[in-house]
Amino acid sequence: MAFRTDLAIENKEIYDSKNKDKGIEISGVEIEKEKFCDEISITRIKITNEHGSRELSKPLGNYITLEVEGVVDGPEELKEKASSAVALELKRLVHFHNKLKVLVIGLGNDKVTPDSLGPYTVSKVKVTRHFFLMYDADGDDEMACVSGFIPGVMGSTGMETAELIQSAAAIAKPEVILAVDALAARNVDRISTTIQISDTGISPGAGTGNKRKELTKETMGIKVIAIGVPTVIDSRTLILDSLSGFLKDPAGAESYLEQNGQDMIVTSTDIDQVIKDFSDIISNGINITLHPGIYS
Amino acid sequence: MAFRTDLAIENKEIYDSKNKDKGIEISGVEIEKEKFCDEISITRIKITNEHGSRELSKPLGNYITLEVEGVVDGPEELKEKASSAVALELKRLVHFHNKLKVLVIGLGNDKVTPDSLGPYTVSKVKVTRHFFLMYDADGDDEMACVSGFIPGVMGSTGMETAELIQSAAAIAKPEVILAVDALAARNVDRISTTIQISDTGISPGAGTGNKRKELTKETMGIKVIAIGVPTVIDSRTLILDSLSGFLKDPAGAESYLEQNGQDMIVTSTDIDQVIKDFSDIISNGINITLHPGIYS
Amino acid sequence: MAFRTDLAIENKEIYDSKNKDKGIEISGVEIEKEKFCDEISITRIKITNEHGSRELSKPLGNYITLEVEGVVDGPEELKEKASSAVALELKRLVHFHNKLKVLVIGLGNDKVTPDSLGPYTVSKVKVTRHFFLMYDADGDDEMACVSGFIPGVMGSTGMETAELIQSAAAIAKPEVILAVDALAARNVDRISTTIQISDTGISPGAGTGNKRKELTKETMGIKVIAIGVPTVIDSRTLILDSLSGFLKDPAGAESYLEQNGQDMIVTSTDIDQVIKDFSDIISNGINITLHPGIYS
Amino acid sequence: MAFRTDLAIENKEIYDSKNKDKGIEISGVEIEKEKFCDEISITRIKITNEHGSRELSKPLGNYITLEVEGVVDGPEELKEKASSAVALELKRLVHFHNKLKVLVIGLGNDKVTPDSLGPYTVSKVKVTRHFFLMYDADGDDEMACVSGFIPGVMGSTGMETAELIQSAAAIAKPEVILAVDALAARNVDRISTTIQISDTGISPGAGTGNKRKELTKETMGIKVIAIGVPTVIDSRTLILDSLSGFLKDPAGAESYLEQNGQDMIVTSTDIDQVIKDFSDIISNGINITLHPGIYS
Repeated sequence: MAFRTDLAIENKEIYDSKNKDKGIEISGVEIEKEKFCDEISITRIKITNEHGSRELSKPLGNYITLEVEGVVDGPEELKEKASSAVALELKRLVHFHNKLKVLVIGLGNDKVTPDSLGPYTVSKVKVTRHFFLMYDADGDDEMACVSGFIPGVMGSTGMETAELIQSAAAIAKPEVILAVDALAARNVDRISTTIQISDTGISPGAGTGNKRKELTKETMGIKVIAIGVPTVIDSRTLILDSLSGFLKDPAGAESYLEQNGQDMIVTSTDIDQVIKDFSDIISNGINITLHPGIYS
Repeated sequence: MAFRTDLAIENKEIYDSKNKDKGIEISGVEIEKEKFCDEISITRIKITNEHGSRELSKPLGNYITLEVEGVVDGPEELKEKASSAVALELKRLVHFHNKLKVLVIGLGNDKVTPDSLGPYTVSKVKVTRHFFLMYDADGDDEMACVSGFIPGVMGSTGMETAELIQSAAAIAKPEVILAVDALAARNVDRISTTIQISDTGISPGAGTGNKRKELTKETMGIKVIAIGVPTVIDSRTLILDSLSGFLKDPAGAESYLEQNGQDMIVTSTDIDQVIKDFSDIISNGINITLHPGIYS
Repeated sequence: MAFRTDLAIENKEIYDSKNKDKGIEISGVEIEKEKFCDEISITRIKITNEHGSRELSKPLGNYITLEVEGVVDGPEELKEKASSAVALELKRLVHFHNKLKVLVIGLGNDKVTPDSLGPYTVSKVKVTRHFFLMYDADGDDEMACVSGFIPGVMGSTGMETAELIQSAAAIAKPEVILAVDALAARNVDRISTTIQISDTGISPGAGTGNKRKELTKETMGIKVIAIGVPTVIDSRTLILDSLSGFLKDPAGAESYLEQNGQDMIVTSTDIDQVIKDFSDIISNGINITLHPGIYS
Repeated sequence: MAFRTDLAIENKEIYDSKNKDKGIEISGVEIEKEKFCDEISITRIKITNEHGSRELSKPLGNYITLEVEGVVDGPEELKEKASSAVALELKRLVHFHNKLKVLVIGLGNDKVTPDSLGPYTVSKVKVTRHFFLMYDADGDDEMACVSGFIPGVMGSTGMETAELIQSAAAIAKPEVILAVDALAARNVDRISTTIQISDTGISPGAGTGNKRKELTKETMGIKVIAIGVPTVIDSRTLILDSLSGFLKDPAGAESYLEQNGQDMIVTSTDIDQVIKDFSDIISNGINITLHPGIYS
């Protein structure tokens, strides 16, 4: 069955369950697991060749998954640990130096709660480029030159989100783009526990079913790091998954849904708190990474 | 199968489909259909005895359903017609007189888009009670004495919503309470087309699966008119409904979901526009009904 | 005294009061007054040469002022008349044809109530360009091809607002840019009564004291029509104006304020309602102008 | 001159400047100063008799002022220190025990940025009473039983804010009420640096000029602790203060303003960031005080 998920770790889980072997190695896929502060699991999946890419239905590159239980509406201390873990992983992909320029993009629709992670996160990132302009500085030892951009969704702007981002990049001239977005998962539990960081770019609107032009190193000419949190479940996946044991014709059911399913948003009932907590965690992780002299 | 819906008209549809006869009469249920301005269908269901109540799984009373296609993101003129239709039906339940006092309640969570209909609507209703206090007036020929209250949800206040409303009613001393809330429907198409007005009260939190103390004439000692718009689909209903033709053991599937299903919100992808347009339509309908000298 | 105002009509009032003659004609300034529906005053000021420009401290061009009393928290009917008046004046500056392309810009900061007029207005304008893209249409008899853009403020983006708008214009390729912004007035009464439409462009941030790169036909290469509502009073102007009769050294007081005054926002206490009502009026006026087949 | 301020510390400054002696002692006023972490000044003013009350124009009781420079848009670490200082002072007024019940009130209008401190702060306070209800618990060693309530403003509800709070208190039955509100200061610099905690209650709406029924131990029958941040300057105070050196008839100017001044909101241009940072600081301070087992 074709379950839709934006998470590489779920594609690996699906692969494992198909192969009835949880530990099987895939040629072209390297996996590394680690614990951070006991409470956070880090899984680094590296897809190194076309075979791996085909098996996991994902482009070549790095996919880092952070998993943490109990962070939503949980203790402040655990949120801080999660921010530190995000920063630690981001620092492996973005190296601070005193001339670093970064553009942070908040994808999604701030008017629809499960799609508002990107805009909320960017509104909490410390933007600094205007200070560099004001003082005509070309570098700083304590903070990167950071721009922030919330492009909106095509239904509100009438313009391709990727084109707007390209324009912003032409102004900000960043060395790297950080794109924060809501993702789709297969498993509803992931909504309150998981963060995925990847260096393979992003498709704006993927989380809510509106596929758009991709943001990748190829299309943008700039390294694009995506940071996402699953906030929705694909409705077809939910339906098929929930009743998998009760279907008399699974393939027929799937193709029926393909043709008759409606685009819907499926999310968890505490999505407001999920957005609040994860936008705090990710924005702090970004601030620690980009402004080492101010945040710690 | 036990489909969950807050709409009396859907319970009637389910009854009809079970009985393979779309026109069957139910003892204790009176139905009246009408067209308004060609574009709006009005269905008035009156449940007059216990038999009717049992067959439609709804308390005795009146359930008026307004159905209009194309109003979301549609022409201003159609929204105005829908407001007029809401006002026309409301006026049959709330009669304006120069000492009329009304409390308008916005149920739901303004931080979660599909649950924010109530708060948004109340923020657009013209509240006037403070003018009456200021001028020590006990009546007016042009406008009712209207209070507005947005009680929040229990997860944010720690208090029972029904208790907070009772307190507000003790202050405002209304003749009637209008409670605006998001509802759950069986059919996703209803999310952008349907308004239900009923005089049988409301259960705060029903739309998002959090059943709470009821707001009814019995519990409040005051007539309660509920105005609702379906903004979510019950996830178990969605799942069962979507694959009803493919299940080998429907009853087993249903009881499996009862035990293993998770509380999720299922809504349409244009929910932001739905909330915007329907809160406009309903608040205008309320303003026309309560303030005949100002709105028309 | 140098009172700061974005309103041409106030510059004319200041000129008149200095010259102790309310009706004096200025060479290079043409003034036309009209009533719309009895309740709306329209004043069209045309600055035709450098002398007029110098006397009124404004660039050459047209400045249309609409004045209406009692529209804030007032009857729906009066808001509709105000929208019609806005549309009527806009139509003199933007002529609908079936290939018309427009970019509507919402300037200001949606997080600061008196600066949020632009973003709120644009969120209510009907954006259509994505439909034209989807159907590969190059024109329509009922609606213009409209894009919407909310660039944010420099403190949040780190980027020059004018540069971001230029980029959006490069994507949307409009025939005309409509820029909606909050303005500064001298007289606090103007906050709830006045709309200014001009064809001379705009300086983003002027309303809140942050002068920025200008948006004009010269800088953008595209006709720029500005629609503004005064929502703030310049604090130095307020101070000098309030006590003008009690100063022993007016010039000294003025230069003292120039050096010691702080940047502050001065606004009216009902600013939330002002933003709500005027964003409704202006967005409706824009929709009527740009989409004659849908709005009327 | 009658400068209006909600800050006891500013009344003391005014007293000192009138008496041309910064250190003068007032009978009935005890003052204690302290530094916290070098960066935060704490001034505790205790008014012990009617003479002190008259001289400082404030009711008998405790007024604690925290002053910190550079916290707005500043380093995370400094915000955390400020939260600790708030918690330390709050703990002197509210003693945690395992049956502690608290009602936290957010006064003000969430639609007007400078008046939105209360609602924003309460939305970040951890509300727990519903857990106590759910598990039928009458106490807990780690957290207090906390309710949260955002009553709105009279213009939106039509009801007296103090009456609504009394009703909420009748439901939540707290030992103490914490009321968070925006305050008025004389000096604009205080907007980004000062927090006042007092045990003498609060007048909802005072910050924006709408005096209302008081919330005090006398009117509520429950201890009321007010936590406020100056976010506005009284416009008459601003005007008189700015031009004090240039007035030929100060008393005449003052009485002129009394009669001709308009109600306006004067605030700082970075008020959005002020609200964001101070609502974080205060909500964290409250959470640390009330939930010692969860926050630290």
